[in-house]
Amino acid sequence: MLKVGYLGPKGTFSYEAVLKYTKNMECFSAIDYSTIEDILLAVQNDEIHEAVVPMENSIEGAINATMDMIATEVDLTITGELVIPVQQNLLAKEGAELSNIRYVLSHPQPIGQCRKFLNNKLPGAQVRVTYSTAGAAEEVAAGGNELAAIGSETAAEVYGLNVLARGIQDKDNNFTRFVILSKGICARTGDDKTSIVFSTENKPGSLYRILDIFNLWDINMTRIESRPAKRKLGRYIFFVDIKGHQDDEDVRDALTMVKRKSSFYKFLGSYPEYKES
Amino acid sequence: MLKVGYLGPKGTFSYEAVLKYTKNMECFSAIDYSTIEDILLAVQNDEIHEAVVPMENSIEGAINATMDMIATEVDLTITGELVIPVQQNLLAKEGAELSNIRYVLSHPQPIGQCRKFLNNKLPGAQVRVTYSTAGAAEEVAAGGNELAAIGSETAAEVYGLNVLARGIQDKDNNFTRFVILSKGICARTGDDKTSIVFSTENKPGSLYRILDIFNLWDINMTRIESRPAKRKLGRYIFFVDIKGHQDDEDVRDALTMVKRKSSFYKFLGSYPEYKES
Repeated sequence: MLKVGYLGPKGTFSYEAVLKYTKNMECFSAIDYSTIEDILLAVQNDEIHEAVVPMENSIEGAINATMDMIATEVDLTITGELVIPVQQNLLAKEGAELSNIRYVLSHPQPIGQCRKFLNNKLPGAQVRVTYSTAGAAEEVAAGGNELAAIGSETAAEVYGLNVLARGIQDKDNNFTRFVILSKGICARTGDDKTSIVFSTENKPGSLYRILDIFNLWDINMTRIESRPAKRKLGRYIFFVDIKGHQDDEDVRDALTMVKRKSSFYKFLGSYPEYKES
Repeated sequence: MLKVGYLGPKGTFSYEAVLKYTKNMECFSAIDYSTIEDILLAVQNDEIHEAVVPMENSIEGAINATMDMIATEVDLTITGELVIPVQQNLLAKEGAELSNIRYVLSHPQPIGQCRKFLNNKLPGAQVRVTYSTAGAAEEVAAGGNELAAIGSETAAEVYGLNVLARGIQDKDNNFTRFVILSKGICARTGDDKTSIVFSTENKPGSLYRILDIFNLWDINMTRIESRPAKRKLGRYIFFVDIKGHQDDEDVRDALTMVKRKSSFYKFLGSYPEYKES
């Protein structure tokens, strides 16, 4: 049976990602971990088969823990990606109404994302910070009608809560891209992406010369993200996503050249590009 | 009198940055704020003259709050930069020794940075999370000999604590680069950096074409960092630092071209490059 690790507890957006990913699977086991590091090490150590971890969010940006781990701490490849809309909701117990709510519980991030709703609809309510949105939902489920949590619809289902208000976040366009990481590789589908990470020599124009390779081979770069090399301020490693599969002739040739021109290089996987179905 | 805002309370690494920045000033007033957003808005609204805010750390990477604010929320320019070594220390009251310590207080980030020390030297001590390192120091100063805080040397001075152990972080090479932001501009010194932020058109190779401009003008790019454009997953804005001043002829010509080739462009300042003195 396929064992898939995710950032728990049940009811998080990572859990929604796992449900979406395993939708057509007959047999799997979803195992929750409390940190991204723990999930990826569990795959590395063969305790589980795959990890579903967040890679970037359309508002918050890159997920540093995921990037730092896959660059240097584990030897896993990306075998898929999927996108989850992040929609926050006000959750309360059966019978509770908006006028009952005196306390709103959630993680600091969703609280920050729902400022306008809280100011307009619950100006008198007191905000209490919790360790996770799922933890907030659990606490509300165990408490009285004066409590509400901010969290996902899945959290409402998992903890038996009602959705008092739907989509209460200030900004729309809030999506998180998750990646599937494992020790496997993916065959070419014809509509693939490839991810790599590299660092350049410490001299002027060295990043430009690498990007020039993609230009020469007419390869479309869809993302570039930098992270500190952690040795010295001002030295970086670069995460690049390109269109195509490592078995495509031009991608293979370009990557060979990038490898030759970089001081550190790691292939992170070729995988089917996510399409909303 | 110059009013400088920083991320407080007294004793934080931001406070150390302010002390370093104002070292040779005769007259200034350092005002503490609790978020980066608040500091920058205070400069924007003319409540204070300058902000000293973190821009990147050699281990943790870019400081998103600073980048997002200066890109779109305020209209300020960078007029200087400085680098502070991040050294964590174990702080306790006069008379307390390592063998007395039962509780270690700090912000989650420094606790994570000092795992090895805590496991080796204080295996029996209980870790308690606080809102800031300075808050931990304040609590220790008000408590007994069984308490210790993890924090800066400045925090020890501010709260009258002893340094029980110095430089207890797992990794060396931990530095934070701060920038000074104001409504002013800096004259050319001959050893300057220039920062800009831009977004590209949504078509293949558009980032490459912008970096190509710097290559054509023989301009050295020292940093590139992306942040989400916040409209759609997969759309980014790019922060670029280059060597030179906007009054240098080739920098001016290159920036004119970058502006023409980008869908969004903002000049963030030309300022003297930081040199360790």
